[in-house]
Formats: sequence, structure tokens, C-alpha cells
Amino acid sequence: MRMYDIIKKKRDNQPLTKEEINFFITGFTNGSIPDYQAAALCMAIYFNGMNIEETTALTLAVRDSGDKLHFSNINGLRVDKHSTGGVGDKTSLIVAPLVASCGVKIAKMSGRGLGHTGGTIDKLEAIPGFKTDLSTEEFERIVNETGIAIVGQSAELAPADKKLYALRDVTATVDSMPLIASSIMGKKLAADDDCIVLDVKTGSGSFMKTIEQSKELARIMVDIGKSAGKRTLALITDMDIPLGNAIGNALEVKEAIEVLNGKGPKDLTEVCLCLATNMLYLAEKGSIEECERMAKDAIASKKALNTFVQMVKAQGGNSEYILRPELFKNADYIYEVKATEEGYIYSVNTEGYGIASLLLGAGRNVKEDKIDFSAGIILRAKTGDFVNKGDVIATLYSEKNAFEASAKKLLESTKICATPPEKRDLVLARVE
Amino acid sequence: MRMYDIIKKKRDNQPLTKEEINFFITGFTNGSIPDYQAAALCMAIYFNGMNIEETTALTLAVRDSGDKLHFSNINGLRVDKHSTGGVGDKTSLIVAPLVASCGVKIAKMSGRGLGHTGGTIDKLEAIPGFKTDLSTEEFERIVNETGIAIVGQSAELAPADKKLYALRDVTATVDSMPLIASSIMGKKLAADDDCIVLDVKTGSGSFMKTIEQSKELARIMVDIGKSAGKRTLALITDMDIPLGNAIGNALEVKEAIEVLNGKGPKDLTEVCLCLATNMLYLAEKGSIEECERMAKDAIASKKALNTFVQMVKAQGGNSEYILRPELFKNADYIYEVKATEEGYIYSVNTEGYGIASLLLGAGRNVKEDKIDFSAGIILRAKTGDFVNKGDVIATLYSEKNAFEASAKKLLESTKICATPPEKRDLVLARVE
Repeated sequence: MRMYDIIKKKRDNQPLTKEEINFFITGFTNGSIPDYQAAALCMAIYFNGMNIEETTALTLAVRDSGDKLHFSNINGLRVDKHSTGGVGDKTSLIVAPLVASCGVKIAKMSGRGLGHTGGTIDKLEAIPGFKTDLSTEEFERIVNETGIAIVGQSAELAPADKKLYALRDVTATVDSMPLIASSIMGKKLAADDDCIVLDVKTGSGSFMKTIEQSKELARIMVDIGKSAGKRTLALITDMDIPLGNAIGNALEVKEAIEVLNGKGPKDLTEVCLCLATNMLYLAEKGSIEECERMAKDAIASKKALNTFVQMVKAQGGNSEYILRPELFKNADYIYEVKATEEGYIYSVNTEGYGIASLLLGAGRNVKEDKIDFSAGIILRAKTGDFVNKGDVIATLYSEKNAFEASAKKLLESTKICATPPEKRDLVLARVE
Repeated sequence: MRMYDIIKKKRDNQPLTKEEINFFITGFTNGSIPDYQAAALCMAIYFNGMNIEETTALTLAVRDSGDKLHFSNINGLRVDKHSTGGVGDKTSLIVAPLVASCGVKIAKMSGRGLGHTGGTIDKLEAIPGFKTDLSTEEFERIVNETGIAIVGQSAELAPADKKLYALRDVTATVDSMPLIASSIMGKKLAADDDCIVLDVKTGSGSFMKTIEQSKELARIMVDIGKSAGKRTLALITDMDIPLGNAIGNALEVKEAIEVLNGKGPKDLTEVCLCLATNMLYLAEKGSIEECERMAKDAIASKKALNTFVQMVKAQGGNSEYILRPELFKNADYIYEVKATEEGYIYSVNTEGYGIASLLLGAGRNVKEDKIDFSAGIILRAKTGDFVNKGDVIATLYSEKNAFEASAKKLLESTKICATPPEKRDLVLARVE
């Protein structure tokens, strides 16, 4: 088998066989197929696409390119959710304990943030003492005892995806439906969950600009998940609005605690309840209506908050911080960003908001950077709100008294217009 | 300027600017743009094409990527012809002295053969003593005195093309009209000729499968040549039949001498006369009819043969070999390939014929290989001929008494059918 023939076949719009796709992924991962041939193939896939059989074969090849997790000692169904990227997305911190408190196991591996995106592991480490590296035995024991544990990714899951994504990122081949689907699902299927809820973001800031495209991507991923033996469904959610008001590690943990206390921002609470409902539904806890009631009850009764407390305790964290969030250290410096004109906040560039937060010290430029857990942004006005010139639209928090670049980036990323934007639902569609 | 944006722009079917194309070719040639980005761009060009402005800009960028020739001391118009590849293509050996004998200067740089293709320089070196490396002064002097000189390429012409072609060759991006056109014309324009006749091959063995495609490629190349200030025209010729009967260095020189003596194979003579006619026409020697008469006269009067003799003498070769071709050393071993079935030779794979010749020692697998000048093939039956089982279809010549692989390749490359192939003209079209 020759890589040349595989490229030519896809270029000529013929479907690739499973064997050809495996040959490509194996060779690309071990370095025997050079980057330039992989780049040519990705561009040919960009133009000619892949059918569902090809996309599934690619996904499974990516899944099988590295380690696969097996938690044979965990009792009961395990469910996970995956979001296709977002800024200030703290839903995992809320949804995971919420679902666990209703009796479905959460055995979650999460990542760290890089660049403008945050990571759940960094957020959890803002809680003093919280350990994100556990042995498999500890991890399985905690999941069995408290229903939930969240750790950093130690195994090398889907290395083909890591290498291929880096290549696609510099060859303008990222936004191809089969390549996106196989990248997300290849990683997800390497983890050992029974049920997967996909949170597919849609809107100007995401890969999928229209709801139709997002639905198509969701459809492909759900079908792949099912054909790999996982119960899978997807929600299409709005990407154009950062969920909640907080961006930054400790600030997001505090906001998550507010939601678990029933006092969180409305948009964030709504999306979290919807995700949790569907996770419970996939785990066969009842009808959608029953699962929704169950999720709401778990918040109202503080059962979800209590599970969060138990998890923090079990993973060595100081759970007093969860019960009294005012213990979190405040940033030394605060700065208020004011609107430079009057009008409606028409849209925001969420990536720009992520960069503004990064500039305050809340993220990493390179993997080795140290994070300032107290740094970040609290939004005071969001998409759809009317602001007068001089109104505070955001408060910036940092250990460094240097806010200029961050404030500039935030203002640049906020589009103010004379007319309000069209309202749309936070959860736009559901694909089962 | 970022290569990423250039790839994305072409991917999204927007025309690239001259500056973007120059940025790409400069960066790719000096290594600052990696192969994988160039491969992605080539595949995007494969799908979305390039308009004539882009193709011209790419050609000029390729031309300007290395040395350019200047023969300021040569008096009079210089004309050259370029063929888009072929096996057993000895037309240069015939056409060049023919045109020179009519008073148009030929200052030709030629290449060596590699793989299944032969090279004019190797063929000339089959003549004992013939020197293919001359100083610029010697070269210009000989052109002025005898009207013609043919040397090997010493300057690094169009290095961007060499690098890009090697990449296209392994990424299934060779057969793209703008990439083919800019590759050929980029090299051609780096030489210092006033007139260029392009011999565009068409048929199953070439890049361009149909006459329509070949005409389109010819149109693009002619327009580029003209816009770069060169008088340019193109002939579309049949690729599916090897011209003449000889493949192999000394065998081809001997066949060229037969043509110059007016006793060569009909097909080869016809194509050479047509090429020479058009070269003379471009050099303003008269109308097409006048130029055709002039070319025929040059053969009939032995004027063309005499110019070949003068060139061989001037370049240090033993011209007795031209006057008495029986002096060329015969191969030690001879083998006759016989038809294994009866029928019409329906088509031949000329590349396969080239490989059969290579296996006899007539070519190089790698650049360092030594050539056996006496090795090669004489075809005894050609496309359209009827053969009985056991008829000799080719004679193989070699210094090694090992013919099996070559004979097998030759038979595999010869398709015999019950019905004869459709007849078509050797010169199928002319694009001016």
C-alpha cells in the first residue's frame, strides 16, 4: 500500500477503505508517512469529504493510535460530556457533580488550558490542596465511593489526533466536517465511558457557522459514537455568548458554586441543567421530563453541591472553600473596563475575551507558564444588554497592575451597535 | 504575510496576488516555508485552479528563483523547442541542426535522462569525443560560427521548480494545469531564447488525456510565453506512439542521422519537419508554407546533416561517426522479443518501453549510474501494425546477456487486440 495512491484516490473523490485509513493513521503516527503527504490528504478530504463509513474508520483509527482507558473496577454506568471548545466554559465543574449526585458515575479525565482556552484541571487546582494526579486505584476507589472523580490526562490518548490537529492547524484544513468529527470522537472513544453527551457549539466563533452545519456535525458524531457501542447524543448550543459572567480559574469555580447553590447566572444554569438532564437520560434514569426534575431537585436540595464537596475532600482539596467561597484569595489589583460608546452589545468575540483573560495571568502562553488562579474577568454586561458610554462592562482581576493590553483586547472584542442583536435560544437543537 | 492565509485563500477559491505567489515561491525555495504547507497549497490549487494572471505570476516567480541565462554575444534570433516529455524522443537531435542550417541560432541547454526518460545530452555523448560542458565564451563562439551548440545545464535554472516538482510527485498534485504550465514555462523562460515552440504531448501516457485539455494547457503556456516577451507557439502531438523505432542513446543518434539523410522513419520525419517549420516561422523566415519548403530542402540538400557534422566537430566529437554511422559500436548481445498472440498492436505504454530500455543499461536508475550507449531497443512493429504469434516485435541490445526482465516489461507494455486502433494524425493541433 502506498500513501501516494491513497492521496490520489481521495483527490479523485473515491471513498477510502478501512485498510487505507488505518495505513495512513498508523504510518502518520509512527512517522513513516511524512507531514507533506498527510497535509495533501487533509486538503483532499477538505474538498471531497468522507462518507460516514470512512469517517467512522478514521475515528476508530485515531482512537486506536495510543492508549485506551479501562476502568473495570468502577461499578455502574459512566457518563461524560464533551464540549467542542469554549471560553469561560465551566459547565463541567457544575454538571459533573450534579449528575454524580443523581447516581450516575463520572470518571473524568480533563485537560489543562493553553492559549485562550481554559482547562477544567487548572480550574480545580485553584482549590487549595486539590490533587489532579491520582493512581488508577485511587481514582476508581473515589469514583465508587463518591460517584465522581476528575483527574488530569496521564495516558497518551489518541496521539494521532494530537499530531494531525497540529498539522491541520497550519495547513488551513481544520474546518472539515469528517476531520473535526474524527478528532473529537477519536479522543472521546479512547476513554472508557458508557454514555457521551456532546455539546456542539455553533456561531461565528466556532467551526460551524450555521445551525444546519452544527446539526450535520452532531449527526455524524452521534452516529459514530453509537456504532462504537456508546450511547451518544448531542446538544447544539450557542457559542456567541460566554456562559455566565466569570472567566478565570478561581472566579469560575466560585461561579460554579453559585450555580450549585441555586444562585448562579441564568444562562449558565440553564445550559448546565440541560446537559445534566440529557446525561441522566442517556444513563436511563428516566424520561427527559423526569431527568430534568431530578437535576433541578439536586440543585435545590444541595445534593449536587454536597457531591462536589465530597469530591474535593476525596481528592485532597480544602472543602471549606466550597462552602465559603469568600476564602478564595482575591486578586491584588482590580480594573474596570468602561464602554467607549453607547448602544447594545451586539456580539462578542469569545476568543478575544479568552486572550484578555490570558493577558491578566489566568492562562498559559506556553505549557510551562504558571497560572495566577485569582486572575480573570467578571463581565458586567453581556450580549443584548444596553450600555451607556462610561458604563462598566467588565472588571479585570490580576496580580500585576498592568491592565492596558487586556482592557484593549476586551473592548476590541465587544461589538456595540445601535440595534440589539436577534435573540436566540441557548440550546438550539438536540440530535439523538 | 503568512503562508497559512495564502493556503486558506486558495482553498476558499480566491485568486492569489503576485505578492502572495512570490512570497510562497521565495519561502519554499529558501526553506522557510515547510513542505507540508506547500503540499496543502498544491492540493488546493489542484482543486480550485489558477487564473491566467496567477499562473503567469507563478511562472515568473519560478523563473526568477535561480540563475537566468544571458547570451549577449550571440548574433541573431535564438529559437528553442520544448517537449512535455517522451520516450525515444530524439527530435532535438534532428530539429536543432535542421533549423540552424536555415540560419536561425540554436543555443541549447539540455538535460540528462533519469528513470524511464532519456536526455539529449546522454545521446550526444554517445558520439566519441563530444563535449557537453563548454565555457560560456566557447558556447557563444560556436553558436556564432556554426549556428548551433548543445550543452548540459550548468547553471541552476528555476530551482523552485525542481523542489516543487519533487513534492508534487509524491503528493498526487502533478496533473494540475497551472502547476504544469508554470513548471515548464518557468524553466523555459530562465533560458535566453527569443522564440519557443512547445511540443505538447497528448494521449493516455501523458498528463493531458484529451486534445481539449492539451489545447488548454498549450493556450496557457503560449499566453505566458508571449506576456514574458517571447514569440511562442505550441503543437499538440500524439504521445501514444513512440516516434521512430529506436530507443537508446547510440541507436537514437543513428536514427537521427537517417532522418537527416532523408531516410528516416516516416512518423519521426513528419513531426521533425513540422517542429522545424514552426521554429523557422516564429523566427520570421517566411510563411508557414515557405518555412516548410525550406526545412524539406535542408534535408534533401544535406545542409542540415552538414550543420550537425559541423556542430559535432566544433564540440570536439568525431564527425566520422555522423558520416559513417556503422562506426558506432554494436552491443555485444542481441535478443528478439516475439509476439505471444496475434492481432493488431492497439496501444503501447511508452513509459513501459522506457523502463524496458533502462533495464538493458540504456538509462540511469540514480544520477550516478553509468550508461551503456550501445544498449536499447529497435521496434520492429508499432501501434496499428498486425502481428502473428511469434513475429518479432522488437530487438533488444545490451552489453549484459540478461534480457528477461526487459522483454517481459516490453510485452506487458504492448496491448494487442483483434481490432486495429483508430488512426489519428501525429500533429493534432497548433496553438499560436
